[in-house]
Amino acid sequence: MQTIYLDNAATTKPNSEALEFAINKLADDGFYNPSALYSRARRVSVEVDAARKQILSFFPKGYNLTFTSCGSESDNTAIFSFAKRGNVVTTLGEHSAVYNTFNEVKQRGVEVRFAPLNKNGSVNEEKLLSLIDDKTTFVSIVHVNNETGAINDINRLAKLIKQKNKNVIFHSDGVQAFLKIDYKMSSEVDLYSISSHKFCALKGCGCLVYKANLHIKPLIFGGGQEKGTRSGTENTLGIFVMQKACQLYSNVQANLKKVEQLKQAFISSIQEVATIISDENCSPYIVSFSIEGTKGEIMQRMLEDKNVIVGTGSACSSKLGTSRIISNCGIDKKLLNGVLRVSFIYSTTEEDIEAGANAIIECAQTLRKALK
Amino acid sequence: MQTIYLDNAATTKPNSEALEFAINKLADDGFYNPSALYSRARRVSVEVDAARKQILSFFPKGYNLTFTSCGSESDNTAIFSFAKRGNVVTTLGEHSAVYNTFNEVKQRGVEVRFAPLNKNGSVNEEKLLSLIDDKTTFVSIVHVNNETGAINDINRLAKLIKQKNKNVIFHSDGVQAFLKIDYKMSSEVDLYSISSHKFCALKGCGCLVYKANLHIKPLIFGGGQEKGTRSGTENTLGIFVMQKACQLYSNVQANLKKVEQLKQAFISSIQEVATIISDENCSPYIVSFSIEGTKGEIMQRMLEDKNVIVGTGSACSSKLGTSRIISNCGIDKKLLNGVLRVSFIYSTTEEDIEAGANAIIECAQTLRKALK
Repeated sequence: MQTIYLDNAATTKPNSEALEFAINKLADDGFYNPSALYSRARRVSVEVDAARKQILSFFPKGYNLTFTSCGSESDNTAIFSFAKRGNVVTTLGEHSAVYNTFNEVKQRGVEVRFAPLNKNGSVNEEKLLSLIDDKTTFVSIVHVNNETGAINDINRLAKLIKQKNKNVIFHSDGVQAFLKIDYKMSSEVDLYSISSHKFCALKGCGCLVYKANLHIKPLIFGGGQEKGTRSGTENTLGIFVMQKACQLYSNVQANLKKVEQLKQAFISSIQEVATIISDENCSPYIVSFSIEGTKGEIMQRMLEDKNVIVGTGSACSSKLGTSRIISNCGIDKKLLNGVLRVSFIYSTTEEDIEAGANAIIECAQTLRKALK
Repeated sequence: MQTIYLDNAATTKPNSEALEFAINKLADDGFYNPSALYSRARRVSVEVDAARKQILSFFPKGYNLTFTSCGSESDNTAIFSFAKRGNVVTTLGEHSAVYNTFNEVKQRGVEVRFAPLNKNGSVNEEKLLSLIDDKTTFVSIVHVNNETGAINDINRLAKLIKQKNKNVIFHSDGVQAFLKIDYKMSSEVDLYSISSHKFCALKGCGCLVYKANLHIKPLIFGGGQEKGTRSGTENTLGIFVMQKACQLYSNVQANLKKVEQLKQAFISSIQEVATIISDENCSPYIVSFSIEGTKGEIMQRMLEDKNVIVGTGSACSSKLGTSRIISNCGIDKKLLNGVLRVSFIYSTTEEDIEAGANAIIECAQTLRKALK
C-alpha cells in the first residue's frame, strides 16, 4: 500500500530528475573543489555561479546570494549580521530558526520585541508597527507561517516599517514561500532566506538572498568562499539539485493554481469533522485544522497506521508538545490539542487528498468514540 | 584519455557505492524529516544515530558527535565555543578554517598566540609549549597539515599542554587525518573536526567529535537538532554517505600501507627534478615538493593539459598566491614559487603515480628550458 505523504512543509521527497542531474554532474567532471585553480575546478565554480543566477532570476536585480547549509543557517546569518544594536523586532509566528535566534540576541544584550499574531497566524500589523521606533535597527517577519500557512504581505510591511524608520534592515524567512507563493520582491526587503529541501531538493542546502550593498557578517570563517560571506567547501551536489528543482518548478502560478484546488477539495472533505484554522489568506500549500475532542499526536499515529502521513506542527518544534505558534494565534483552548497540519507539494494528487481526507474522517470518528 | 586526479587533499570523488547506498535509503523511506514525530520519521532519526555511532566507533568511549555542514563549521563551532577568555593558542600551520577564525577571535578581544613551524610543517613543540601559561584557555593544533602532510602528535602535545595548564580545552582539526592516519585518540584531546568530502563522501557534511561533558555553544540556533548543539534539518543524504564511506574505508592500516608504497614510488620517480618538502614523518596521503626554477601555477596548468591534476596548496587559500603555510615552514625562498602538492586516496593506483610522475618530469624539463 502506497504512503500518502501530506507533511511537505516539514520536508519534501527529493525530485529524482533533479537528483540525477546533479549526480551526473558530479560523476562527470563536477566533483572538483570549486576553490581549486585548475580549469576543471574553475568550471565547477562557474557552474555554482550559474546555479546562483538561476535562483536569483526569481528576484529583482541588485541582490546577491550566499549558499548556506539550510534555512536555519540563512536566518541566523541574517540576524547575527544585523541584530546588534538598539531594538530588534520580530513576530510570535516565526519558525524557531528566527524565534530562538532572537532569544539568543536578547541574551547578548539587545532589546528584542515580539509582535502578536492574528487568528490565522499572520502578524498583527498595527501592533507590529507600534513596536518600531527610531532605535529599531532590524526587523524579521516570516513570509509564510510554517504552521498555519498565513501569508504576511512582507512588501507592504517592509514599506510601512521603513516609513517609520528608514534605517531598519528588513529580513524575511521565505522558507515556506519560495517557489510556492506568487511573489515579486520589492526593494524594501533586504534579506530573504530559502531552504532547498522544502521544494524537492536536498536537505543540507539553502541560501540567503540579500541586497548587494549589505555587509554580511559570516557565521563560519575560513577559506573565504562565497565572497567571504560563508566559508567551507561548497555543497555542490546540494546546490545543483536546488538549481534543477528551481528550473522544474519555475511555473509558480500554475502550481499554485493546482494546489489551491487541492486545498479547496481537502477543506470541503474534512469540514464535517474539523475546524479549519488556516483561512483564505493562507498559502494553499499548508492547511492547519483542529479536530475537537481528539489529540493531534494520537490522530497522527492512527493516520500513519493507514499510511497517511500528516504533521502536528513544525517538525522543528515537535518535541515541545502543543504548538507555540498555534497557541500564539489565540485560538480556542479546546481546539489546541487536536491540531493537525497537512501540507502539499507539486506532486500531490487529487487521489492523495481524497484518501487523506477519508482517513482523517475515519480516524476522527474512531478516536472521538474511544475518548468519549 | 583518463584524468589522473592527484589533488585528493582538496576534495575526493564520492564513492559510488556509498552514494548509491544513501540515495536508496532516501528513495525508500529515508527522506522524512528526522525531527517529525511519526514512526517513519523517527526511524530516520534512529538511522542518523546509527551513522553517529559508526563514526564514533573510531573514537574512545565518552565522546559525542555533532553533525555539521563541513570541516570549517566544525572548527568554528569548537573555537567559538571555547576561545573566549585569557589567551588562546594555535599554530602557523593551520588550515584557514582555524587560522582565520583565530583572527576573528582576536578581533573580538581575546589574545591569540601563533606557534611557529618546523621545516616539514609540523608545529615547533618547544615554542608551542612556551606560549602556554596559566591564562591559556584553548589550544587548537591541526592533526595533519593540509599542505605538507606533517603529522602533529596531538596526543603528546595535548598531554604536555595540560601538564602546564590542566584547564586548557584542546581541539584538533582532523580533516586530513581521519580515516587516513592510524590514530587512537587519547582522552587529553577534547574536540576533533572531520570533513566528509576528504574521504570519498560528499561536500556539505562533516562533524565535530567532543568530550561528552563539554558544553558546545551552537553557531546556528533554531529547532534544537543535534541535542541543541546545531540547529537545522539534518543533511541525511550527506550523513548516510559519510556513514557508508566510514564502513568502506575502515581498514585504515591497510590503506595507509598501500598509500605509503605509492608515496615512496612517487618520491623516487620525481626526485631527479624536485626538492621534497614533506618528510618521512608526514602523512603518506600528501606530498609537497618544489621544482626549482618553475612556477607552481604554470606547472599545474601544463599538467592539466596532460590530464594530470595536482594542487598548489590548499584549495581554500588558493587565491592568495604563494602558500602561507609553506612560507611559514621557512623553506628556501627560491623554492617557494615552484611548490606543488600531490595527494592520494584509497583508489589511487601505481599507474596513476607513474603517469603523474612522468608528466611532472616532462613538464618540469619543458618549463625550465622555456624560463631559461
